[in-house]
Formats: sequence, C-alpha cells, structure tokens
Amino acid sequence: MNDMQRIKEDYPWIQTPVVVGAPMRLIALADMAVEISKAGGIGFIGAGTDVSDLDSHLSSAQTLLSALPSPLPTKPHTLPIGVGFINWGADLSAAMPLIQKYKPCAAWFFAPSSLSSLAAWTQQTRQASPATKIWVQVGSVQDAISAVSTADADVLVVQGTDAGGHGLAHGASLMSLLPEVHDALSVSAGVGPLLIAAGGIAESRSACAAVLLGADGVCLGTRFLACPEASIASGYQAEVLRATDGGQVTVRTKVYDHLRGTTGWAETHNARGIVNRSYFDAVGGMDVEENKRLYEAEMEKGDEGWGEHARMTAYAGTAVGLVREVKGAGDIVKEIREGVKVVLKGAKMML
Amino acid sequence: MNDMQRIKEDYPWIQTPVVVGAPMRLIALADMAVEISKAGGIGFIGAGTDVSDLDSHLSSAQTLLSALPSPLPTKPHTLPIGVGFINWGADLSAAMPLIQKYKPCAAWFFAPSSLSSLAAWTQQTRQASPATKIWVQVGSVQDAISAVSTADADVLVVQGTDAGGHGLAHGASLMSLLPEVHDALSVSAGVGPLLIAAGGIAESRSACAAVLLGADGVCLGTRFLACPEASIASGYQAEVLRATDGGQVTVRTKVYDHLRGTTGWAETHNARGIVNRSYFDAVGGMDVEENKRLYEAEMEKGDEGWGEHARMTAYAGTAVGLVREVKGAGDIVKEIREGVKVVLKGAKMML
Repeated sequence: MNDMQRIKEDYPWIQTPVVVGAPMRLIALADMAVEISKAGGIGFIGAGTDVSDLDSHLSSAQTLLSALPSPLPTKPHTLPIGVGFINWGADLSAAMPLIQKYKPCAAWFFAPSSLSSLAAWTQQTRQASPATKIWVQVGSVQDAISAVSTADADVLVVQGTDAGGHGLAHGASLMSLLPEVHDALSVSAGVGPLLIAAGGIAESRSACAAVLLGADGVCLGTRFLACPEASIASGYQAEVLRATDGGQVTVRTKVYDHLRGTTGWAETHNARGIVNRSYFDAVGGMDVEENKRLYEAEMEKGDEGWGEHARMTAYAGTAVGLVREVKGAGDIVKEIREGVKVVLKGAKMML
Repeated sequence: MNDMQRIKEDYPWIQTPVVVGAPMRLIALADMAVEISKAGGIGFIGAGTDVSDLDSHLSSAQTLLSALPSPLPTKPHTLPIGVGFINWGADLSAAMPLIQKYKPCAAWFFAPSSLSSLAAWTQQTRQASPATKIWVQVGSVQDAISAVSTADADVLVVQGTDAGGHGLAHGASLMSLLPEVHDALSVSAGVGPLLIAAGGIAESRSACAAVLLGADGVCLGTRFLACPEASIASGYQAEVLRATDGGQVTVRTKVYDHLRGTTGWAETHNARGIVNRSYFDAVGGMDVEENKRLYEAEMEKGDEGWGEHARMTAYAGTAVGLVREVKGAGDIVKEIREGVKVVLKGAKMML
C-alpha cells in the first residue's frame, strides 16, 4: 500500500493532495474544522492547553456533521475531524473521556513536557479510541526520530521555522528539514509515518513545493486566519490582510507570551507573530511589567488594538504577505488542492 | 521571449533548469567556477570584500576555459563565468578594470553600503562591460523592489534564511519569500528580472521546489563545499559531511564575524554556520577578546581545529545535513539538473 492509499484508507472523505487546517488555539473551532473536512481536507479543533471547552466544540462539530445532506464517508467509529493538543498544558485525564466519546479521526500532539508524557498521551488515546490516528508535530530530525520511536506516530507534522504561532525557536525551513526528515525516517524505519508539511505554506506554489520536498499533504494556519469560519477578532484578521513582506513583518519571539501570560512554554519554543509596538518596546528595553500593563490597557480598544502601531498580538507566519483576501475555508482547501495540479503542470512545461 | 529563452540567450552554454554556484569568498575560485559552467551551470568566483587576487583568479579561469577541447558557446565578449562582490568591502575602482578586461558574464552584487553605492557599481559595470549582466542578491520583498528600481537588475538572487554564510539576520525562507517576491515584481514591473533561488537548496527535491515557487534557476553554496574543486580546508569539509539535522546544528549569528575580525557587516546581516565551542562559549557569556584569543590559538591546529568541540568557523546552511559525500562540481550540477526532472515526474504520478 503506498502513502496515498494509506491516507485514503485512514481518512476516506479526503481528496489528494490533502490540505489540513492547523489546530489554532481559540481560533480553529467547530465551524472551521467542519468546513475544511467537508471540502475534502482534514479540519482540526485547536484544544491547545485547555480542554475545558472541548466537549462543547466537539459536540458542535458533531451536530454540524450530522446536518450534512450526505454524511462524509469515514472510517468506522471516527469523527471526520481531528483535535490538536498542546500537551505540556492540556489535562490528559480530562481529554481522554472526550476522545473516547467523540473519536476524532486524529489526535495531534505538540510540545509535550517529556517523551514519557508523549508516550502516555499516545497509549491512552489508542486505548480510548483505537481508530484515532496519532499525529505528532516535530521541528527537527531528532524530534521526528523520537516521535516515531516513542509514539509510533501515524503522522508527523513537520513544521519549518516560517510557521506562525508556536514552534521551535531555532531550526530550518521546510526546504531542507522535510527532505532530511524524509531520508532519516526511511533509513531508520523502512515504512515511515505520513508526513504533513507546515510552515510558510499559504497557497498553491508552496503547497506544491512541499509535496516535492517529500510531504504527503500540507497544513495551513495563517491562511485560515482569513476565512469567515475563523473565530478571530476583526482587528487581528485585518492585520493579517495588511501585512506584506512576511519575513520582515513577522518575528519569532517570546515577547508575546510574556505579555499574554502564557508562560508554560519550554525555553526551546517561541512563537512567530507580526511585529508591533509591544515588540519594538520590548526590544528597546521596556520593562516587561510596564509593557504588559500597556498591553492590557490596549485590550480595551477592541479591534483598534491591532496594528503596527498598536499592541495586541497577531500570530502569523512568514506567508502572511501572501494572504490577501478573506475566503471561505472550504474554498481555500479547493483552491490549494486544484492549484497544486496547475503549478505542477506549468513547471513541467517550463522544464 | 519567455524567461527560459532569455536565460539561454544571456548564457548560451547553460542547460535548464540552471544550477548556479554561489560566489563563496575564498572558496569558490577558478577551478570550481569553470567546472560548474562546463557542466552547463553558471560558475562564480567569489571576490567578496577583497579584489586584490581577482586578476589572478580570472586569469586562471580564462586559461582553464581556453584549454577546453571545444569552447563553451558564449555571448560575444563575455567569459562564461561570473564574479561575486560583497560591495560594502570591495574596491569599486580596482574592480572595474578587471570587469573591463575579463568581461565576466555576470557581476553579482551583495550587501552594498547604500542604494547609491549599488547604483554606482551597476552603472560602472555596465559601462566597463555592456554584456555583463547585473545580479543582485536580496533577502526581502523590499530589497527586491529596490534592486529593480535602483539597478534595473537583470537577475535577482533571492536568498532565504536557510542559506549558509552571510545574509539578512531576519527573514523568511524561500517557501514564502520567493512567491511573494515573484508577485510583487510582476505587479510593479510587468516584465521582471530573472529569479535565482538560494538558501536551503542542496539537492534535487529542494531545487525542484524552488522552481515551483517561482525561480528560474537555483543557487547552491553548502553543497559545493563538498567538491574537490572547492578551495577549502579538509577539516572544514569533514565538518560539512559530519553535520546532520541542519536546522539544529547551524545557527545565524554574528559570533563568527567577531572572532574572525570581519566587522564591516551592517547590523542587518549575520551569517549561518555550524555551532561549535566558540559559539557555545559566546552564548555562555565568554568575553569576546578571550574567545578570539582561543580561536586564534586553534588556527594552529590545522584541520583538527574544526569540529563540534573545536573553534574554527564552518559556515554552512541548514541543508548541510543533506550533504553526504564529496562529488565533482560538474557532477553535482548534472545530478541536480537531471534530478529535478525525476522529482517532477514522481510528483505528477503521485498526484
């Protein structure tokens, strides 16, 4: 069975190349996840570090899926959407009954506090819902090898440094990371996990590039910030549309975590966001307490609180400069899937 | 005339997709440049910040080219190799007589002290050798727009953050940078310069990805560190072969510039190299003078001075983990050019 057959067997409703919606905490909820899966992609609910609302989000997704005129073909006993956890913060014992109850097609693990914690999440998830596939997000070759040996991951989400939001503070982009991970796993494992590429992909050209680099599918976050199904403030969304020259206008930093009080991240991780006044003040030496006070005051402003001269955080990847319109999540999935074929055809003619 | 016709007219000996050898200072000299061009690529001599040896390098290249059984087809009045300058340090008045004398097919400009300096280099080069094409290395969308408006660049070398050696300290990888540059120039210029992709490319998969991202050709540096034609210490070359997990084992930093006394670089630029004891000592707080003293002592050790526990600098990009053997520069060019077609064919079947 080749990789494309495997992916079609595990997620029978998808079309290839598969487009995945990143489990963005607070932003990717039932509406987005269901729209993405309806369009032949794989949608995720971002549970993140806190599973207290997850029951209600999964219940909403189940209701939306039940209301479809024709149900999505799924593997028996699974819901055709996944759930993403930030493992260092999420409560394993609270999560397991929900995995057992809803049986998401995939459980995506990211930033566990240790490999033994990753092993515990994996083992208990497989026990709670045997058909749920284990996805592990990695940012290095060593991470990838560990995820296979520790969790026997079904899927590795290989994240390059262009990605928005949290990831390894230090690393490579998909250009070299993906081929090196691909080779390392082929050498060490024979038949490896499926590889989903994340980081810097917002449209067809980069999606196609990721496939040629060795990915079985692509994952987009930043692009889905600009869809009506995103649970996102208008000010944040406007900032995503405004930003250009994505490598210059975004930065990997811990500053936004400090301001927002999300202090549980390991030293190895930070997050990419659009630069703003908070960031420049921090770099300029402003005391973190003063910066935080200004940040909290800015929250009162609502949508006006976002912008290059404002203080609210807009996490986004370097591909933000390629996000130029608000478009339905399902239409984004179809645009990218069809676009990949067009790009490939064009390249073939060029060569 | 499409881009492929343009590139074939300007460099008649090349085969597509064109593979370019980066003008690595002290390392890419006549032997490497000629081998790369002989194989249908475009070889560069790295003059860097110092043109005092350039006459002798160009003379050697001319001799090697004259000795070929059948001469490479060139545009009239050009040598089928290029020269790369680091403009903030290179002496314009010393360089121009050499450009006039040898007429390299391309003059590659990087890190000028100002846009007016870039304009002066461009204008005087075109006067000294009208057939010499102007290549400008850029690392952001804004850089790209400026290079077109200031220098009417014939070629932009678009460098992503994975690249080894010097480049912008802060930016995006080719995954998002190349499509955004492509779009920005199409919008602002109609018919734009040719785009050559650099940064993170060491083999066929990433070369093919770069083409799909919008490149007319690819430039490799790190890969050519492991060819017999490189003017490189064995210890450095061994370090390139040893290093794996390229995003983890390399870092962008100014530490190596401080140790080596190459202090003329702007604050906007740093360089990617393999981490070693010098780097960890610097991060650990060692005084720069003490670190420099230890570095200089290490120079006495010859090839033993390189390694993860040693102190000599090994500049390399994140693709270093994909460099696994020493191979002739010409064979590398052919491997990549033919490999791109194989990768493309494989992807088409997969989709």
